[in-house]
Amino acid sequence: MRARDLGIHIGRMEPGELNAITDVSGVRVGHTTLIDGDGPLRPGEGPIRTGVTVVVPHDGDVWTEPVFAGAHRLNGNGELTGLEWIREAGMLGGVIGITNTHSVGVVRDALIEAAARAHAMSDGIWALPSVGETYDGALNDINGFHVRPAHVHAALEAAAGGPIAEGNVGGGTGMICHEFKGGIGTASRRVGEWTVGVLVQANYGARDLLRIDGVPVGRAMPTSEVSSPWDEVDALNARATPEGGSIIGIVATDAPLLPHQCARLAQRVGMGVARMGSYASHGSGDLFVAFATGNRGLSRNSGEDDPRLTVDLRMVVDQHINPLLEAVAEGTEEAIVNALLAAETMTGRDGITAHALDADRLVAVMRDHGRLA
Amino acid sequence: MRARDLGIHIGRMEPGELNAITDVSGVRVGHTTLIDGDGPLRPGEGPIRTGVTVVVPHDGDVWTEPVFAGAHRLNGNGELTGLEWIREAGMLGGVIGITNTHSVGVVRDALIEAAARAHAMSDGIWALPSVGETYDGALNDINGFHVRPAHVHAALEAAAGGPIAEGNVGGGTGMICHEFKGGIGTASRRVGEWTVGVLVQANYGARDLLRIDGVPVGRAMPTSEVSSPWDEVDALNARATPEGGSIIGIVATDAPLLPHQCARLAQRVGMGVARMGSYASHGSGDLFVAFATGNRGLSRNSGEDDPRLTVDLRMVVDQHINPLLEAVAEGTEEAIVNALLAAETMTGRDGITAHALDADRLVAVMRDHGRLA
Amino acid sequence: MRARDLGIHIGRMEPGELNAITDVSGVRVGHTTLIDGDGPLRPGEGPIRTGVTVVVPHDGDVWTEPVFAGAHRLNGNGELTGLEWIREAGMLGGVIGITNTHSVGVVRDALIEAAARAHAMSDGIWALPSVGETYDGALNDINGFHVRPAHVHAALEAAAGGPIAEGNVGGGTGMICHEFKGGIGTASRRVGEWTVGVLVQANYGARDLLRIDGVPVGRAMPTSEVSSPWDEVDALNARATPEGGSIIGIVATDAPLLPHQCARLAQRVGMGVARMGSYASHGSGDLFVAFATGNRGLSRNSGEDDPRLTVDLRMVVDQHINPLLEAVAEGTEEAIVNALLAAETMTGRDGITAHALDADRLVAVMRDHGRLA
Amino acid sequence: MRARDLGIHIGRMEPGELNAITDVSGVRVGHTTLIDGDGPLRPGEGPIRTGVTVVVPHDGDVWTEPVFAGAHRLNGNGELTGLEWIREAGMLGGVIGITNTHSVGVVRDALIEAAARAHAMSDGIWALPSVGETYDGALNDINGFHVRPAHVHAALEAAAGGPIAEGNVGGGTGMICHEFKGGIGTASRRVGEWTVGVLVQANYGARDLLRIDGVPVGRAMPTSEVSSPWDEVDALNARATPEGGSIIGIVATDAPLLPHQCARLAQRVGMGVARMGSYASHGSGDLFVAFATGNRGLSRNSGEDDPRLTVDLRMVVDQHINPLLEAVAEGTEEAIVNALLAAETMTGRDGITAHALDADRLVAVMRDHGRLA
Repeated sequence: MRARDLGIHIGRMEPGELNAITDVSGVRVGHTTLIDGDGPLRPGEGPIRTGVTVVVPHDGDVWTEPVFAGAHRLNGNGELTGLEWIREAGMLGGVIGITNTHSVGVVRDALIEAAARAHAMSDGIWALPSVGETYDGALNDINGFHVRPAHVHAALEAAAGGPIAEGNVGGGTGMICHEFKGGIGTASRRVGEWTVGVLVQANYGARDLLRIDGVPVGRAMPTSEVSSPWDEVDALNARATPEGGSIIGIVATDAPLLPHQCARLAQRVGMGVARMGSYASHGSGDLFVAFATGNRGLSRNSGEDDPRLTVDLRMVVDQHINPLLEAVAEGTEEAIVNALLAAETMTGRDGITAHALDADRLVAVMRDHGRLA
Repeated sequence: MRARDLGIHIGRMEPGELNAITDVSGVRVGHTTLIDGDGPLRPGEGPIRTGVTVVVPHDGDVWTEPVFAGAHRLNGNGELTGLEWIREAGMLGGVIGITNTHSVGVVRDALIEAAARAHAMSDGIWALPSVGETYDGALNDINGFHVRPAHVHAALEAAAGGPIAEGNVGGGTGMICHEFKGGIGTASRRVGEWTVGVLVQANYGARDLLRIDGVPVGRAMPTSEVSSPWDEVDALNARATPEGGSIIGIVATDAPLLPHQCARLAQRVGMGVARMGSYASHGSGDLFVAFATGNRGLSRNSGEDDPRLTVDLRMVVDQHINPLLEAVAEGTEEAIVNALLAAETMTGRDGITAHALDADRLVAVMRDHGRLA
Repeated sequence: MRARDLGIHIGRMEPGELNAITDVSGVRVGHTTLIDGDGPLRPGEGPIRTGVTVVVPHDGDVWTEPVFAGAHRLNGNGELTGLEWIREAGMLGGVIGITNTHSVGVVRDALIEAAARAHAMSDGIWALPSVGETYDGALNDINGFHVRPAHVHAALEAAAGGPIAEGNVGGGTGMICHEFKGGIGTASRRVGEWTVGVLVQANYGARDLLRIDGVPVGRAMPTSEVSSPWDEVDALNARATPEGGSIIGIVATDAPLLPHQCARLAQRVGMGVARMGSYASHGSGDLFVAFATGNRGLSRNSGEDDPRLTVDLRMVVDQHINPLLEAVAEGTEEAIVNALLAAETMTGRDGITAHALDADRLVAVMRDHGRLA
Repeated sequence: MRARDLGIHIGRMEPGELNAITDVSGVRVGHTTLIDGDGPLRPGEGPIRTGVTVVVPHDGDVWTEPVFAGAHRLNGNGELTGLEWIREAGMLGGVIGITNTHSVGVVRDALIEAAARAHAMSDGIWALPSVGETYDGALNDINGFHVRPAHVHAALEAAAGGPIAEGNVGGGTGMICHEFKGGIGTASRRVGEWTVGVLVQANYGARDLLRIDGVPVGRAMPTSEVSSPWDEVDALNARATPEGGSIIGIVATDAPLLPHQCARLAQRVGMGVARMGSYASHGSGDLFVAFATGNRGLSRNSGEDDPRLTVDLRMVVDQHINPLLEAVAEGTEEAIVNALLAAETMTGRDGITAHALDADRLVAVMRDHGRLA
């Protein structure tokens, strides 16, 4: 059940066919989900509730053909590698990875290895991959470093278009959102001939603040009704940060946007997050990247092998960019709701449990507020 | 009638005594409101619906004693001078002005003149004032350049603490918000011993998108019910940009924040704007500045006259910054609602009319959505 | 006499025909120079040593047709309006002005007035002009606010291609550089079919630090040999900031650069400044803007009147951008030297004198260091 | 032999006792140098010419006690993780690592592992380490991923104050600078009671552009005299990018700087790089971080365990910051020269050789230009 299946229509625009980032032609998503063991936390052994998600930006050789991209930091208590290059050259040079906070490095280097392998280890292949993270240490043995290069390669092999698994999958496996079980979510919007897709790894926020389409759902379903995993973390004398957590947002579009226009879209992810009730707390790593595949055939990062002095491009006229901006705000809001609805109750290390957001209860709350008539 | 008078309580924090930016000790606000003439637009003659608002940041010599500050751009189709200095040195060096788009220059230079006068034209007085703007050309003869230095000096003389006039005053005189009459609004929040105040000049947004405390008020009060001034602009074959417009947000706090912490607060203004339904359209100048008076006695911009090699400061521990961040998001949302409620219906040039948001109608809509029980 | 006339060839690239920013086709420069009175400073009366310089970016209707642009802040103790729009939309929307610190406002509003006039005050004309400044208060009655709108209009009327007056002209009239007389300077470089031009208003730096083409000229011509105006300022008990001051740098090119590429060029202005010996002192406003005319026909800032959903562009392939980057570093260095060589000794308010850099003496120093063999 | 041993005194300030970043009290540096094998490149086998360098910022528990920091990007064709946190919170949260481009990930995760180990894998330990890189693929089997976690731990164990090995050590092992052998270099400057130290991993630049203290050394020692390793790379039909390469710069000071002041220092690293003749080519990752230990006792990144609502700080008065800014520009210039002088001729994969800059020859060139009289 996704938001629209419940009759919750965020915003005023129409989604794409799958209502997913994969509605943008050529975009593929792959997950490796790692769930193993139960019981007390034993660093290095488990329990394991983590994974890696990859977003492949186009259907060409992603290791040598970049696409235009931009980024935004709503709050920087997080990591998203590769941003200096995106900001400097406006280019996303390969596959985006999302994982847990302590596995960014292994995913990053494994993506470079994949690039090198794809080119027979030929000289001069190099990369500055973008890998983001959120913290799953409430449920997962994060200091066990369970994500390995092979998991990254598996996610790459699994990457496909079509419907995307949401919730407790890939990098989102062990994530918590508004003190419910969170994880991966996606949505899309049509803008004339173009599509805007959003994928989030949602791991942020206090219950009390949760708004869904403006309805104060968090107050209607307080932690006294559906308990919070952070209370259990707190009881263990570990660090309880219900308002911490983070969200990574990936925006894809086939509109021919220039890099600075992509950055504008990236900032609108935060507007969707704000509508959910977040104020982007100190502990959050709210980092967003947007890429646009409407211009293809761009030259690789470096080297001297492109005989073209200039390339021809198209650019969306700014006077017509508004629907693309709005699509990101709407799409982000809906992607987060989809993550919440898809995620199933999960019990992780030390028996800590993050409960699913119950769809029937949500519908009842929405009706109490004059929605879903 | 302000939002709280209607029973609308945005967020979960308590406002200060006046629920205004002037709850921050030492902060003063002054308006010069210019309303003159009716009928067709005659550039240079009128009709005039504009003005200037000044925010005085503290009770000392604001021309020589700066306070820490930070800024954020949500969308840059606007002007807010002085930002390079705020970003570089983290300091706000004087009074902030807000006016219409075409009067930023006169207000800026007049503020420098005021600084020079305050110091008997003494040598070495100079300044980089912060002056922001939104566009009031739908109601005002903006190309008539009706704001003069004397209006700036009058606003400075009028600057006072205490309750602040909202709505059609000062820089907000001719502004339009969500296709209702907009203008100046303010709100505040208590954070322990500290106060966070927000003042906005609200001039943005489409009716359809308006959410108040999450309730889709804009859809409930469409332009077919309460007509939009932009439709009248459009009928005149002038430029209709209902989704354009802009919002300037000023945040004040007496918490001892460092400059980078002020910048974090500034970004949260945009989260309040997002909750109102805005997606920060292309045509908007959504520029925000936050200043903190919790550290005083900072040295002036330049010169070699401070014998102190270092100064002692206090800094809010980041682990405790969350309520300050949240206060900005909440306070912005409420300040915008206050602007909408305070602004009265205004007819400007060419008979164009921006209607007030009717308080009774708003209450009815909120009740329909399970609020104000 | 300019640097090349003395045999000083900065860098390894060739200049354009005029070795000026006007080598970029369509770029025009106009100055209004205000020199009046002598003797003691009487605020409001004089002496006057100031002015305004305008850079017109292309040969079309600059008020409605923008060009791509980017900006960089090396040090922000200064003002350059319009930067938020340049950073957001990557567009320069009109004429750039340069003047003294306290006249930015009047120049800004006058440029808007010029835009409105050029369009018969038609509705919907508006602008966010870029106006920069450096401080000429050591020689000029800066608190007299002697720059008036008419001076801006005169500079616009005077704007022309061809050779550019350098030194004590326009905005550069009262400027001081490395404790010599400074002001306006320009240079250009050829990059294949393209040209890169730089124009500076140079008003920064300590004598001791001055390097010309790497030669420590400042040490060879100390203030004991050629006295510093700042010592005279100091003797007056006014503020002496020999290491303060500022530099505004404008880069123009006809290469088809995108906005983010323009920003990269803008940052390289600072590399030229660094080679001159500056470390970008606290008191400096070192703000740079670069624009590229290689893509024309871009849509105006706002409104809904462009029927084109997309526009076709060209973009310099990044692999070939290096000479453009290098041209800015070289061109800036040479433009500053040109400003120093063109500026003539000037006596300003209170009899303060800024001495010219003597060309013969410079040649001798260069020869002592193995140059100009 | 270091620059000063040859009589080359860059700038006008005095170095600290060791003329090294370790002159800043508490700062320690450790290298692991990996040199193994000769002959043709066999990916995964070698030859190996790489390593890792760590900079430990203070003498406390660096994993839980951050220090203020700021960053700057001169050119972003590189990686330096952790920058979003530095920009957001102004804090450096642990040890800085520097390595080759393809080993950033392994070093990053290993630093987190070290943090977790140092705290007995206790719950709630987490980190966002800063790890930078430059590309050593001309000499090293970079796609062999030869840096392992154990090498990071070894560098941490080796970290010490006192004199620092320069040249072909640690992350600098396989680096090339101005087509000579490059690598690690360091320098420092005294600013009253304070010290500013700079450490670089220098791997950038064309020979022709090399200036040392303003003297055109590169032209005097062209690649026809001392051959370039890039010509050999080119002959192998691998990618030749003599003007590519990168430089990572780390600035340390014990002055009590706030985060935004640290960022100002970080930008001045680029001014030192510019004085060496670089124009920051497209292919360069010129990323700089500056940290200040003058305020200690700051709270860790997150959690709710600090009972202090505010902390007391000191801040350098901006009017006195100039020598700190200048120290960075000077120190960077000298650190690069030291790297060039310390690095010995190295032959790497496929027999490619990067030659050392010969000290005697350098002295002769300097004398030809009126220096080292």
